[in-house]
Amino acid sequence: MGKTLIFGHKNPDTDTITAAIAHAHLKNELGEEAEAVRLGDVNGETQYALDYFNVEAPRFIEAAATETDKVILVDHNEKQQSVDDLEKVQILEVIDHHRIANFQTKDPLYYRAEPVGCTATILNKLYKENDVKIPKEIAGLMVSAIISDSLLFKSPTCTDQDKAAAEELAKLAGINLNEYGLAMLKAGADISDKTVEDLLSLDAKEFDMNGHKVEVAQVNTVDVNDVLKNKQAINDATAKVIDERGLSLFLFVITDILENNSVIIANGEQINTVEKAFDISLEDKQGLLRGVVSRKKQIVPQLTEAFTN
Amino acid sequence: MGKTLIFGHKNPDTDTITAAIAHAHLKNELGEEAEAVRLGDVNGETQYALDYFNVEAPRFIEAAATETDKVILVDHNEKQQSVDDLEKVQILEVIDHHRIANFQTKDPLYYRAEPVGCTATILNKLYKENDVKIPKEIAGLMVSAIISDSLLFKSPTCTDQDKAAAEELAKLAGINLNEYGLAMLKAGADISDKTVEDLLSLDAKEFDMNGHKVEVAQVNTVDVNDVLKNKQAINDATAKVIDERGLSLFLFVITDILENNSVIIANGEQINTVEKAFDISLEDKQGLLRGVVSRKKQIVPQLTEAFTN
Repeated sequence: MGKTLIFGHKNPDTDTITAAIAHAHLKNELGEEAEAVRLGDVNGETQYALDYFNVEAPRFIEAAATETDKVILVDHNEKQQSVDDLEKVQILEVIDHHRIANFQTKDPLYYRAEPVGCTATILNKLYKENDVKIPKEIAGLMVSAIISDSLLFKSPTCTDQDKAAAEELAKLAGINLNEYGLAMLKAGADISDKTVEDLLSLDAKEFDMNGHKVEVAQVNTVDVNDVLKNKQAINDATAKVIDERGLSLFLFVITDILENNSVIIANGEQINTVEKAFDISLEDKQGLLRGVVSRKKQIVPQLTEAFTN
Repeated sequence: MGKTLIFGHKNPDTDTITAAIAHAHLKNELGEEAEAVRLGDVNGETQYALDYFNVEAPRFIEAAATETDKVILVDHNEKQQSVDDLEKVQILEVIDHHRIANFQTKDPLYYRAEPVGCTATILNKLYKENDVKIPKEIAGLMVSAIISDSLLFKSPTCTDQDKAAAEELAKLAGINLNEYGLAMLKAGADISDKTVEDLLSLDAKEFDMNGHKVEVAQVNTVDVNDVLKNKQAINDATAKVIDERGLSLFLFVITDILENNSVIIANGEQINTVEKAFDISLEDKQGLLRGVVSRKKQIVPQLTEAFTN
């Protein structure tokens, strides 16, 4: 038995880490035993938010079934993005804002997905529906998640609901949205101490696209050239991952958070599918996607479509 | 394009039909173009509720993509229970209270599942969350769904939330719960004019259980022997369906709504898995499941487990 474990996806980002913390707090306030945990390292942006609001990172776990028989997933549902032994535990709830795929249960569950930009926007509703007050530091983490997922409201995934929730939460947290938001995003975009392997795994998700295993990794930066100078090492490293995990495609997305464009570097046998998906010609495996900042809305559906038809 | 079509599962029951009607009304009140439709014949119980509250049955459709590109699913999610051309349209929303299986989307969506006894209980919340008043006749259909899915609160699927919602809705509808409920259930249990083929398809659902196609059909009655007198014809008919659709198992569940037991008749190559699932010995393909009235909670999980391990 043991208490319910709540976690987001592997290679955690700010939404995934803070959603686990915020949802566990809500559950505890409602008298349910639950603990936020994480499936990977905390990135620089998330650490900035945790430090700012003086909250400890959740505990790292490698497996769930060794300590509990029931879990709650936040910010993801696809099993390849989740804990490795997911099939050994019961999924009580999912709170998410992504497509649904590679997910199934034996029993009915609480599943709350909404097509909004951030899990925190949905959690903000759940706090209200359950009539629980959001403490200052939790509100701070939740607004950090919205800033992160929406790139300060500039991503096409950002909805009016996300903006409204961010404004409410910023007030509760006592921060200036723009000032705090830019500082947090810049902390996340600081890649000076990162190896190429770090960059490729920092925010990487694996997808099943019509039977093809596709990895899409994204990194935010204020200087794309600073990343591109390591292009040969990036190609070598993605080739290695492709080989080890049997991927059809590795797409590395370098997003300029000031210009709101992305440079992509593709590798693998299905590199042509990238050209088809975005109607571009890659030069030396590299291309520019103008106005593209969102993996979820501007990359994954287009790639899935290209793999399907 | 066209308006959004809202529908429940094939072989519709009262929850599926009335959930489509109630959710379409909510959408219309919110200014969205939506129409309730159905994927099969209206059964006797549902017709009783529709007649009582003077509401017309939704229009029957065989395909969705011929008239729209977007749909909302209520009371189901598994694709084999849905419209045949589901893959050709975008699923905007799902409102459901079942396990999730054989379901996937390319894009984020609104998915609201709760582990309650009836879709109407969730819709009652959605009306409140959206601050829309439930008209008398819609409340009447919604309470009919809760009575139907919970067998007047006697099914183990029935939660306190379902009871509370039913009492609220009964008030709005101006009915006496017990009086109306018994009359409606009896109208549904009247099988005097039904052929064996009718009984097997009235409330039948197909499941994928670890690669096995399994059909579980249920019929409510006040006289089990009245159904069992046709046992040979039932066996012949299930054998035919098994053959035509490549099923591993056909389980026919005859539920006594006064005694709250079910007699089962199993057919197909996987008949032994039924014995394993319920720890019983079938005699001449027949067995008694004491206290079992819910396919969702007392039959499907146990069978799925037995097929998996």
